[in-house]
Amino acid sequence: MTALLLIIFGGALSIAYGLWAINDVMKRDAGTARMREIASAVAEGAQAYLKRQYLTIGVVGVVLFALLWWLLGMLVALGFAVGAILSGVAGFIGMNVSVRANVRTAQAAAKSLADGLDVAFKSGAVTGMLVAGLALLGVTIYYAVLTRGLGHAPSSRVVIDSLVALGFGASLISIFARLGGGIFTKGADVGADLVGKVEAGIPEDDPRNPATIADNVGDNVGDCAGMAADLFETYAVTIVATMVLAAIFFAGSPWLETMMIYPLAIGAACIVTSIIGTFAVKLGQNGSIMGALYKGFIAAGVLSIAAIAIVNLLVFGGFSQSFTTVQGVTFTSGQLFGCALAGLAVTALIVVITEYYTGTGKRPVVSIAQASVTGHGTNVIQGLAVSLESTALPTIVIVAGIIVSYGLAGLFGIAIATTAMLALAGVVVALDAFGPVTDNAGGIAEMAGMPADVRKSTDALDAVGNTTKAVTKGYAIGSAGLGALVLFAAYTSDLNFFIAEANKAGSTSFQYFKGVTVDFSLSNPYVVVGLLLGGLIPFLFGGMSMTAVGKAAGSVVEEVRRQFREKPGIMEGTDRPDYGRAVDMLTRSAIKQMVIPSLLPVLAPVVIFFVINAIAGRNQAFAAVGAMLLGVIVTGIFVAISMTSGGGAWDNAKKSFEDGFVDKDGVRHLKGSEAHKASVTGDTVGDPYKDTAGPAVNPAIKITNIIALLLLAILAHS
Amino acid sequence: MTALLLIIFGGALSIAYGLWAINDVMKRDAGTARMREIASAVAEGAQAYLKRQYLTIGVVGVVLFALLWWLLGMLVALGFAVGAILSGVAGFIGMNVSVRANVRTAQAAAKSLADGLDVAFKSGAVTGMLVAGLALLGVTIYYAVLTRGLGHAPSSRVVIDSLVALGFGASLISIFARLGGGIFTKGADVGADLVGKVEAGIPEDDPRNPATIADNVGDNVGDCAGMAADLFETYAVTIVATMVLAAIFFAGSPWLETMMIYPLAIGAACIVTSIIGTFAVKLGQNGSIMGALYKGFIAAGVLSIAAIAIVNLLVFGGFSQSFTTVQGVTFTSGQLFGCALAGLAVTALIVVITEYYTGTGKRPVVSIAQASVTGHGTNVIQGLAVSLESTALPTIVIVAGIIVSYGLAGLFGIAIATTAMLALAGVVVALDAFGPVTDNAGGIAEMAGMPADVRKSTDALDAVGNTTKAVTKGYAIGSAGLGALVLFAAYTSDLNFFIAEANKAGSTSFQYFKGVTVDFSLSNPYVVVGLLLGGLIPFLFGGMSMTAVGKAAGSVVEEVRRQFREKPGIMEGTDRPDYGRAVDMLTRSAIKQMVIPSLLPVLAPVVIFFVINAIAGRNQAFAAVGAMLLGVIVTGIFVAISMTSGGGAWDNAKKSFEDGFVDKDGVRHLKGSEAHKASVTGDTVGDPYKDTAGPAVNPAIKITNIIALLLLAILAHS
Repeated sequence: MTALLLIIFGGALSIAYGLWAINDVMKRDAGTARMREIASAVAEGAQAYLKRQYLTIGVVGVVLFALLWWLLGMLVALGFAVGAILSGVAGFIGMNVSVRANVRTAQAAAKSLADGLDVAFKSGAVTGMLVAGLALLGVTIYYAVLTRGLGHAPSSRVVIDSLVALGFGASLISIFARLGGGIFTKGADVGADLVGKVEAGIPEDDPRNPATIADNVGDNVGDCAGMAADLFETYAVTIVATMVLAAIFFAGSPWLETMMIYPLAIGAACIVTSIIGTFAVKLGQNGSIMGALYKGFIAAGVLSIAAIAIVNLLVFGGFSQSFTTVQGVTFTSGQLFGCALAGLAVTALIVVITEYYTGTGKRPVVSIAQASVTGHGTNVIQGLAVSLESTALPTIVIVAGIIVSYGLAGLFGIAIATTAMLALAGVVVALDAFGPVTDNAGGIAEMAGMPADVRKSTDALDAVGNTTKAVTKGYAIGSAGLGALVLFAAYTSDLNFFIAEANKAGSTSFQYFKGVTVDFSLSNPYVVVGLLLGGLIPFLFGGMSMTAVGKAAGSVVEEVRRQFREKPGIMEGTDRPDYGRAVDMLTRSAIKQMVIPSLLPVLAPVVIFFVINAIAGRNQAFAAVGAMLLGVIVTGIFVAISMTSGGGAWDNAKKSFEDGFVDKDGVRHLKGSEAHKASVTGDTVGDPYKDTAGPAVNPAIKITNIIALLLLAILAHS
Repeated sequence: MTALLLIIFGGALSIAYGLWAINDVMKRDAGTARMREIASAVAEGAQAYLKRQYLTIGVVGVVLFALLWWLLGMLVALGFAVGAILSGVAGFIGMNVSVRANVRTAQAAAKSLADGLDVAFKSGAVTGMLVAGLALLGVTIYYAVLTRGLGHAPSSRVVIDSLVALGFGASLISIFARLGGGIFTKGADVGADLVGKVEAGIPEDDPRNPATIADNVGDNVGDCAGMAADLFETYAVTIVATMVLAAIFFAGSPWLETMMIYPLAIGAACIVTSIIGTFAVKLGQNGSIMGALYKGFIAAGVLSIAAIAIVNLLVFGGFSQSFTTVQGVTFTSGQLFGCALAGLAVTALIVVITEYYTGTGKRPVVSIAQASVTGHGTNVIQGLAVSLESTALPTIVIVAGIIVSYGLAGLFGIAIATTAMLALAGVVVALDAFGPVTDNAGGIAEMAGMPADVRKSTDALDAVGNTTKAVTKGYAIGSAGLGALVLFAAYTSDLNFFIAEANKAGSTSFQYFKGVTVDFSLSNPYVVVGLLLGGLIPFLFGGMSMTAVGKAAGSVVEEVRRQFREKPGIMEGTDRPDYGRAVDMLTRSAIKQMVIPSLLPVLAPVVIFFVINAIAGRNQAFAAVGAMLLGVIVTGIFVAISMTSGGGAWDNAKKSFEDGFVDKDGVRHLKGSEAHKASVTGDTVGDPYKDTAGPAVNPAIKITNIIALLLLAILAHS
């Protein structure tokens, strides 16, 4: 119990940090009345959107809650509720801080870049710490209640099913929030640009554009709340999957509980190091924002090595303790420590690689800027080339992570590596969540007519934000790749457990699994069928979300055109645009558009199971669904990385023109030049790529896996 | 021997058809002196390119020939040479007809659309029939020589290895020709557009543009010769893989030879029906070009059902003969017939689906045209959305094909379905290969100043050509998806054979495989590693080829700018541009750019085998390479379909503006409007997507598989 209390203390620390940071941010100067007015319009819109989004998810959630209660019992349903509610809370608080920090960042940036960074980063850190802290607390406390409070055995089905359901709750919020928020933000962004910059010829964030508040709202609901839900889910699902694996691998072993608590302890330790890391973020003499962020990240990473070593000492008494899983794999606690280091190394490498592919001044971004010189078409071609290419190094890193951690401690080693990778979620999210704050700050500066150098500071912060946004997405999807085998192992281990129990002499439980034998070999055509159908999900899902953004943007364009037509005074500055209507209309559109694509990964495993079951029987249905889980990752990882890195690169290629881009012939292309216009096209294309379709692939992968696990549990109870 | 002679007769028919059609095309009027002058410039450029390309491949080929001779013996090396040379011959003759038919098509189109279609289609049919005929003849005759001439047993290693080497020869030409031709054609196309349309403001195919001849050369070397090599390879590799599978599954059975000959017989029968089909292509009363092509395709397809039924009667004496493979799978000849029907059905459905996604006037193309109205960015977004979405239905069709044919006759059933699918290659290629001819004809009409309605006819033909081009690519990649398990089965069966032989008491052969046990289960992390690394190949390969097109286009732009600068008279029409230099420079650039990406799929299996071997030993190395073969298909099929369908849709969305596109608000957008300009951007992006990166994925998949099979053979001999 001491261990669990210590872990809960670690999680609580993040809440304490959050409260302190919120207080610190709120004390800052909120600027002029005009600034506050704009900020409150943004805040209002964001809250209205989130309210409606949560309401919609709530309807689905209540149905699922009832269904889970009916099918798997109250405790499982409660687990689902815990996951869903905490994920919602993390996003809600994070976003509420974000919409208050934006105006304070603008005001602080008027003083200095360092001050702007301080406010923006601190508000982002609130989201980061809440995501990691609430996820850890949710899993730990619910686990403690089930095992210590209600006395269920740690490896009992009710504990495993409840934890999986907790992950499902998080996944459900995540898929809707990522997609709905993504459609809102990019619908607003693309729509506002089209009708404002292109048609009306007014600059970005011009107050005369009725969609400009919606654009700023979008940053908060998409990049802040949506991202928070995504990372909450990734964190929760990974820890849950590791615990499930521990429960199966160490069933009957005296180490069972220790192994289930170990991932939680790593999480708690790394929350502490993440908090320390946030204090290391300070703008240096050279004024490099990325450098400041790296300081915090490196501090957190290096301290985490020591922290995990201490966890090993406390949990296992050192590095030489040896264990054997039920499958006969033997490893030492030192080897588990090695796996955790491998996970940290994967994180570090993915950060560096993503920064290379999306950072201003690096070869890929420069190549896109250069290609803009010859036109729109070549800009897009080069951007697509970069996006495809950017998948190579992360994949090789993930493969290396799999090989090293499997070599050290088998499948459980991979699970520990993935856990350690995600344990840094707090600091990684903190590095990312300041992005929408600075983006908003820039918008407010523009709309409130603040001096040009404020916008310059916020733009500099925003450019780095593009990179860190891509980093977080690469990190989330990278962990999905590393964790692919963990989720698949959870599925197969569960399946084997049910089959073994059902086939015991005289057994009356799990009779659905009686006589089932599943062949997961690649020679089984149903495995290939599952790989292909799983592989299809990210592509189809991506296509549907891109279309949804197009539709949402189209509705923005029409609304703005209508306002311009009906109130000619808007363009002359004598009439005030109706910002609220644009937000409202977009809210409706985004919520409507998010439902169908979100249901695709939710329903796919169920549909495929029953269709294949009808055609070829249970054995092949289980094989096809299992293969589907890997198929969705095998294509998903490439689709997601290519979209998020490519989109980030396009965005920063456009930013290269802000101060004039010097091409290879020495010609300088300024803002407004043909080359700049071509770069804007690439940026527009990259928008839904990097902020809607690409990032939503990660929750789509996770939810497919979680649904498959729940399907097994439900079949077992049938 | 009678059966083999009949098959050879069928193959020879295609040559006879080719000679007749060439003669018929050459008799047509070649137009004015100016037209002939242009056409001969194109022909010269195309021959110069092909010469240099074959020379480069020749160098690689001679090295590989020597290597194969040394490692696997003379007969295997000769098989390689047969595959490579025949593939080269098919492309060479097809292209030479194509560069002569272009000018005759322009002249015929001046008479009527029906005449234009007749000449263009007939010249395309030459390529189609040669591809199928030469591939069938090559495999059949070499098989006859080995078994009847030299007396090797049909299931002996030397026969299997020689047939695989024949496939390798075809693959080698294919990957280089597809990629080199693709880089040339799209480098020319994109480059000519950029510098001509965008910079100089002159129309497409304007004779003042020094890159315009290169553009026309590109159509021939890419869409004709490159496509021919691709389909030759797909045909040869599929038939070879089916034969290898038959050799293994029926080893020791009295049906062994019959089963090896059955796929050849299907091929021969369908060549006959394809030839008949070509005569059904006639423009009807309604003037629908697609309708005319469908007539030919449907005729060939329906007749093929009857033809394969006859083959079944002749080969198996009916539909009730029962067989059992060495693995214990039992099926009847009637069930094999059912598999062949499934293959034909997959072909038909892929044609219909691809036409839907790329056809003018259908929802996807219209949605892209509509999105052009709001700008470059939304055009590209919608195009990408369509490209992602277009993968769904073909995948489901392929999955259904796998399930049905596996249900009927196990793995061998899938092989027969794939064979039947490809047996229609003759008519499918014929439907496609007229595309570059009409594209060229349009260029010649423009340059020679022919009346506008000629260009209108050739444009109408060209629009359909875009769809049929996408169809052929979807068909080729679809067969790769359906054939995935066949190629993988060939790998595992080969592997199992070597392992079994090596482990026989007192065995001294294949000692590398002694004690090897390979776990192809998805739970093996090295299988996941293989899937991920295989999955990476199409993405990285795609990125590299897109970059290559960008570079080639850049070199065209610079050359044209130089000519405009040094000879100001060109623009005024007083000086003649140096077309040859542009062709020459692009040839150099394309050949240089094709080498590195081509080597990626060639080297990947070898490198991965030895790296994993060093880390984790032979067992895991074999598992990883095997999984890689499926990984490359699982992502490759989506990458290829999305690129080729998306590109086709973009191209035809642009074509929608030729006669004015009426948007959903009833506004008409003409050529030269902002919406049209946006559609041109999408078309430019789609160019390397659909003509370079996308189609080259198919040979990349095949060559990875073939190399893996050869690697096994070489390890067995070591």
